[in-house]
Amino acid sequence: MNGRTYTFEDVERILASGDVGGRLSKDDLPTPALVLDLDAFEWNVHKMTGHARKSNRALRPHAKTHKCPEIARILVQAGAVGACAAKLSEAEVLASHGIGGLLVTAAVIGRHKIESAVRLAQRNRDIIFTVDDARNVRDLNDAAGTLDSKPQLRLNLAVDLLLCPRAGIPPGRPALELAKLIHSLPNSRFAGIQAYDPPASHTQGFDTRKKRSCETMGLAVETRRLIEREGLECSLVTGGSTGTYNIDSEIDGVTELQPGSFIFMDVQYSRIGGQDGSPVYRDFKNSLFVITTVIHKRKGTAIVDAGVKSFSTDSPLFPEAKGVAGIAYSWAGDEYGRLDLSGASSDLDVGDRVDFVVPHCDPSVNLYDRIYGIRGDSVETAWKITARGMSQ
Amino acid sequence: MNGRTYTFEDVERILASGDVGGRLSKDDLPTPALVLDLDAFEWNVHKMTGHARKSNRALRPHAKTHKCPEIARILVQAGAVGACAAKLSEAEVLASHGIGGLLVTAAVIGRHKIESAVRLAQRNRDIIFTVDDARNVRDLNDAAGTLDSKPQLRLNLAVDLLLCPRAGIPPGRPALELAKLIHSLPNSRFAGIQAYDPPASHTQGFDTRKKRSCETMGLAVETRRLIEREGLECSLVTGGSTGTYNIDSEIDGVTELQPGSFIFMDVQYSRIGGQDGSPVYRDFKNSLFVITTVIHKRKGTAIVDAGVKSFSTDSPLFPEAKGVAGIAYSWAGDEYGRLDLSGASSDLDVGDRVDFVVPHCDPSVNLYDRIYGIRGDSVETAWKITARGMSQ
Repeated sequence: MNGRTYTFEDVERILASGDVGGRLSKDDLPTPALVLDLDAFEWNVHKMTGHARKSNRALRPHAKTHKCPEIARILVQAGAVGACAAKLSEAEVLASHGIGGLLVTAAVIGRHKIESAVRLAQRNRDIIFTVDDARNVRDLNDAAGTLDSKPQLRLNLAVDLLLCPRAGIPPGRPALELAKLIHSLPNSRFAGIQAYDPPASHTQGFDTRKKRSCETMGLAVETRRLIEREGLECSLVTGGSTGTYNIDSEIDGVTELQPGSFIFMDVQYSRIGGQDGSPVYRDFKNSLFVITTVIHKRKGTAIVDAGVKSFSTDSPLFPEAKGVAGIAYSWAGDEYGRLDLSGASSDLDVGDRVDFVVPHCDPSVNLYDRIYGIRGDSVETAWKITARGMSQ
Repeated sequence: MNGRTYTFEDVERILASGDVGGRLSKDDLPTPALVLDLDAFEWNVHKMTGHARKSNRALRPHAKTHKCPEIARILVQAGAVGACAAKLSEAEVLASHGIGGLLVTAAVIGRHKIESAVRLAQRNRDIIFTVDDARNVRDLNDAAGTLDSKPQLRLNLAVDLLLCPRAGIPPGRPALELAKLIHSLPNSRFAGIQAYDPPASHTQGFDTRKKRSCETMGLAVETRRLIEREGLECSLVTGGSTGTYNIDSEIDGVTELQPGSFIFMDVQYSRIGGQDGSPVYRDFKNSLFVITTVIHKRKGTAIVDAGVKSFSTDSPLFPEAKGVAGIAYSWAGDEYGRLDLSGASSDLDVGDRVDFVVPHCDPSVNLYDRIYGIRGDSVETAWKITARGMSQ
């Protein structure tokens, strides 16, 4: 803190100059503002990369969480082999910012996307696409043939067998057949198995979560063995999440972890329960929050300037206030949140700022164009969330 | 449709050239894509502007719905007196694109925002800010004094008395006192009353909705009379919504309507019930939808490439398929939606495209950077949603 204050126009000028380093305080930022506590973020990055190294697993963190090339770069510099991208357009943004080792986790469907994918693979030879369908494999192979490209294709395995899976080829023989097809075609390379089980990541209680992830990842490892017995190399099995990173890394045959949320954390992940039996999951620190301002006050209620356009609303959980205990947030429209202060540890007045942990980090980040990195109260960086909205 | 097909790189080139007019088909667009049926949109604009004209009410449509300067301009050209903006940063974007007659509907709180507001008022003399607090009025007046600016301030009236209001000064004497304060200060102009009652807009059933809106807008009209009896001019009472436009326009003393959603419509508004007693509200047409692609299929279930990052999730309602009956959408993560096809009127296969009406238009539009205007199957325009994410 240097004691100076700036108008928002000054703030914009400083951000545009690229020379942010410590000239702004977090109080200078227009609210709602998406903020990253750099100390906590770096602690999370250090812990996860250290865990992967110690466990002898590759780490390919999911960029759908942050959509920010700067963050992808920091993760690679800390030891990640690259980044996962949820969709092709997200991967294109990352690639155009020099991020290598990309894995696109959703199937690339339709002639336009297939053409874009093989072009991307021509420029980025190490990119991997996921597939779960023979016709899609043939289409990718045909398109690649016209461009002298030979993309790597990784099987997406439907390990989530309890629910109706949202994608994937069934484990065992169907997967083997698809692997053989990829291997047999001239313009595609078989690049192992992806096995992501969405419900496992948020299963409550470490032991239940462990049981579930061992079962589902076990299917992936069995399928790997089946493919290898048929003489195909299948040295890569990708999976895991922030909730199962230290479970999956202990499963023999899983070679790569793809967690996303650990860099930020959110209310949702805090509820899955820790390995010590605690109801709170504390393996990683809350580094992400939204700064809001109280704009109205009456009796025991305050209104802040952040509503459903500033926080994710896909989970039944609400934003949680940081630093002030006993504040209950509820939605009050697109642009407003209502705070019940009846149990609050301290009072709030119009103009006061309140920080909130977001309910679910990925869709919350997807609402903002910028993330401000702070150290203490000082704004150290302002990164563009360049792949924001890239769901294509 | 001209029969040509384009890659997404071609599409980007055509969009960047500004010369879109009919060269692209909707099938050329990468999905998920936010699309506006221009015929339906123009029908909606024509109906609402015609209604306001006939009722002798000013129309200041809410730009928080579209966040798009092009759409604000079309509404002004059709007869609107300007646009409402939910927040200061949204108003700044609209002003920088030449939209006049702006009303910022949320209070401008904090030194930084107040400074930005009075600067904006210096450049845009007809802008109106809303206030509900004496200290805020004094702060605005003081800041304006240093800049030779004299912004117009409109009282935000807390008419939503059944629930805890999210903003506003109580009707009657408290409002009168605040009006007097504004009038007495050298650097502010008193500019009437804003009375928006959020629950009234979505009250189910026309008669119940009418009763509610007449009660709450009645408080605004009474307050207007009280202020006028004290000798202050109070010629403007703003309020109303897409659900109450033809109710509020009949209330004597309400001078201006500020609906937003009518241009697009959504699943939520379709459920409020029509004046004819029908459970479906058909006063305006669904013009807004999201094009998705089926990327996975198994038995009676299909997966599309649009999930909670492509649709609003603040209401309990789901996206509704257009053109195919009996499809039930449910969430399947950030990037996926699950379709139950067991009751579907026709089958779907991988690669097929399905259009969906969004659950709630405002936060859905706020997820996209671009809205494609189509006429039939032809893409006629691609407008930037320039104020997307501007919740500050």
